[in-house]
Amino acid sequence: MRSLLTGPVRVVNIGLPAFARELAANGAAVAQVDWAPPRAELVSVLAKISSFEAKMEKANREALGRILSAEPVLADVRRAGELIPELDASRLMLHAGPPIEWARMCGPLRGAVCGAIVFEGWAADLAAAEALAASGGVRFAPNHHHGAVGPMTGITTRSMPLLIVENRAFGNRAWCALNEGLGKVMRFGGNDAEVLGRLAWLRDEFGPLFGAALRAAGGVPLNPLIARGLAMGDEMHQRNVACTSLLTRILSPYFAEKGNGNSLVKALQFIAGNDQFFLNVAMAMGKSILDPAQDIAHSTVVTAMCRNGTDFGIRVSGLGARWFTAPVEMPQGLYFPGFSAADANPDMGDSAILETIGLGAFAMAAAPAVAGFVGAGGFNDALGYTRAMAEITLARHPKWTIPALEFAGTPAGIDIRRVAETGIAPAINTGIAHRKAGVGQVGAGVARAPLACFEQALLAFAQP
Amino acid sequence: MRSLLTGPVRVVNIGLPAFARELAANGAAVAQVDWAPPRAELVSVLAKISSFEAKMEKANREALGRILSAEPVLADVRRAGELIPELDASRLMLHAGPPIEWARMCGPLRGAVCGAIVFEGWAADLAAAEALAASGGVRFAPNHHHGAVGPMTGITTRSMPLLIVENRAFGNRAWCALNEGLGKVMRFGGNDAEVLGRLAWLRDEFGPLFGAALRAAGGVPLNPLIARGLAMGDEMHQRNVACTSLLTRILSPYFAEKGNGNSLVKALQFIAGNDQFFLNVAMAMGKSILDPAQDIAHSTVVTAMCRNGTDFGIRVSGLGARWFTAPVEMPQGLYFPGFSAADANPDMGDSAILETIGLGAFAMAAAPAVAGFVGAGGFNDALGYTRAMAEITLARHPKWTIPALEFAGTPAGIDIRRVAETGIAPAINTGIAHRKAGVGQVGAGVARAPLACFEQALLAFAQP
Repeated sequence: MRSLLTGPVRVVNIGLPAFARELAANGAAVAQVDWAPPRAELVSVLAKISSFEAKMEKANREALGRILSAEPVLADVRRAGELIPELDASRLMLHAGPPIEWARMCGPLRGAVCGAIVFEGWAADLAAAEALAASGGVRFAPNHHHGAVGPMTGITTRSMPLLIVENRAFGNRAWCALNEGLGKVMRFGGNDAEVLGRLAWLRDEFGPLFGAALRAAGGVPLNPLIARGLAMGDEMHQRNVACTSLLTRILSPYFAEKGNGNSLVKALQFIAGNDQFFLNVAMAMGKSILDPAQDIAHSTVVTAMCRNGTDFGIRVSGLGARWFTAPVEMPQGLYFPGFSAADANPDMGDSAILETIGLGAFAMAAAPAVAGFVGAGGFNDALGYTRAMAEITLARHPKWTIPALEFAGTPAGIDIRRVAETGIAPAINTGIAHRKAGVGQVGAGVARAPLACFEQALLAFAQP
Repeated sequence: MRSLLTGPVRVVNIGLPAFARELAANGAAVAQVDWAPPRAELVSVLAKISSFEAKMEKANREALGRILSAEPVLADVRRAGELIPELDASRLMLHAGPPIEWARMCGPLRGAVCGAIVFEGWAADLAAAEALAASGGVRFAPNHHHGAVGPMTGITTRSMPLLIVENRAFGNRAWCALNEGLGKVMRFGGNDAEVLGRLAWLRDEFGPLFGAALRAAGGVPLNPLIARGLAMGDEMHQRNVACTSLLTRILSPYFAEKGNGNSLVKALQFIAGNDQFFLNVAMAMGKSILDPAQDIAHSTVVTAMCRNGTDFGIRVSGLGARWFTAPVEMPQGLYFPGFSAADANPDMGDSAILETIGLGAFAMAAAPAVAGFVGAGGFNDALGYTRAMAEITLARHPKWTIPALEFAGTPAGIDIRRVAETGIAPAINTGIAHRKAGVGQVGAGVARAPLACFEQALLAFAQP
């Protein structure tokens, strides 16, 4: 006690950070703990649902068991219309996030929609495309409603080649479009001739060759690849350089077997120039892992988090196909030279599927370089992210381990009860798009899932 | 003071570990610090050379400056006889480590020598090869005497393809044979038809294609590759999976441009199947970085550490081409199933050039998975290795940083004075060969450079 009173002041500040800032400004050592008491309404809900706690525990064990026993395999690349017949049957276009109509779409999403309309030949130019979209000439639906996911704007149309990940433990499959590389790209709202030309090359040359190579290889099991990637600095959301390079090494002999000449050289150049190539593979994997955990009565495990640039939405295992949405937040991060927060669009994309399976910001401890890239600090800050996310998850992944945490597993299975009780919002590593159509990526940062989504879902459990 | 006396006993034990073991056995918290006082003879030597300490500091700054400003580039692959004309001119064979004659060679080195004699057509079979070597029909010299390095047995003969690393800051070049892959290989003393067949393929197909790809690429700068590899779990001695994969991704378009058909597929398969492919590149790089730091009068910086399975040898910048040798030690490590320390050959190879530039065990903090693989513990033990090696080096590398140490640089520039003063022997991550010819690798571990080498070098500085 005496040492407490005679030494310098050392403070742990819980809750409102203003107190901590004041103390820090006066030179005191302060550790800030983000915490807020659950709202009174939630306390009564948590009390109410505790009456079926045993059922929830059992259901969550089942959900977790399915997530942790997944055997995802990158199996093939096929045309979207072949995998999702509705895309061929009508002018249907899939987008990232929960459902949204044209009128509420943000700038980059509208930009991508218009580009995709021209790409599919439904309009001659971008102006005609915009008129078509605004007049209801195109149907919109979330990727998640059709077994797919897509990064940022996440546009999926009939002729695009999609990656296929098979979850061989459960026999289900999930899809994601190919990563377009860096620079001006449709996922960040790009829609000019360069963007559409690259999409055409992916459709006509790269996609078919990649698919042939994967079939020749008999598929690539992803659990061991993710495990290696985590030991090599990837968190598979903002950093995929290890998994991209490992996948290249595994598949390059099959590319050489199935391709030749200039098209082979160009395909290998494309992967060599894009450290994020694996991101879309990881996303399809995430969807393939979580789909079997959907629809387990009483389970409070989150099975999807996504955003369309306007709304953030989550799905919860025991609550079926229903979306719980709230306005999406702005990422906090670093901007490329010449850009600032004033240019940024709110967070977007289905890529938060990675955090939903415990990668991305949840695995930040594996990827300290990402912490710097997204403006979240250094090595110790990276450890802090993973430790915080472990507070709102139910388990540690047995196969995906993090060396810097003495090989503890990634935090798996977000429980909406823990999110509501602790007030810790899931963190998401993300790219930042310009708010206007056609500009592209302007930065990278960390976004937070809105707590309101989790609170609404909790209320839904308490309702008859 | 009171808290010291009333709390449980907490001990830092310096020196003889027996005290610490006893305390630990009784449940006390003990931190063991390995330390021994310098021998009386060394104390007087250290006092004597302190009279020209200013000259040594200046010389060491010059040596360090050259090491840290190196610009190594993997440039080409060429036939050894073309690079080292003496190999074509006579029956000269290069080996790892300091000079050694046939009579003192260990089992695996003799095995590799005999295999290489057959490979070069100097004898019809292994028995004839042994007779030829034993009768003085082959001349032996260290790789280091001819600008080269080689892993384990390190045999270099005239027809082998050698990697060329150019240090573009100084214009010098260094060479290393190609990595043969895993399993039965000449570097571990293998010498049967499988081993020689693979060497023939490397000579006739793979080497020429690899060289053509490198020339088409204009070379691959290695500083950025090493920096990325350190952020991806490589220490470039026992773990090269990141750099091997990154190099594959960079070069695969050039392989596709210069190769075709089955020989291209086979080349890419070979790299895909060998996580240690990059090791030999890193070794040639190490030699190219250290050679310009050789022969700076008064510099106490180590410019080479190597071993031939019998002797360990070092060279020191200010002491010219002279070797300071001592009997090589046994690595401490883990053995493959079915093998034990009784099967092990003492440590061997030129690969300790990696530790000499601050990689390998010096960069263990970057590669916690290696700590487990070589039996050196977990994540915190890995940090401990790098911290200990920083005690015997002069600087931190400005470009090669380690995320888990908040991006501090790798420890660079071993100073023989610091080794002698602290009694901390350089640690070396190493493969373990079977002591008999032809068996191959039986494990991996950590070896220590014998302190006697550094003490002899220090004595040489004190002599007129």
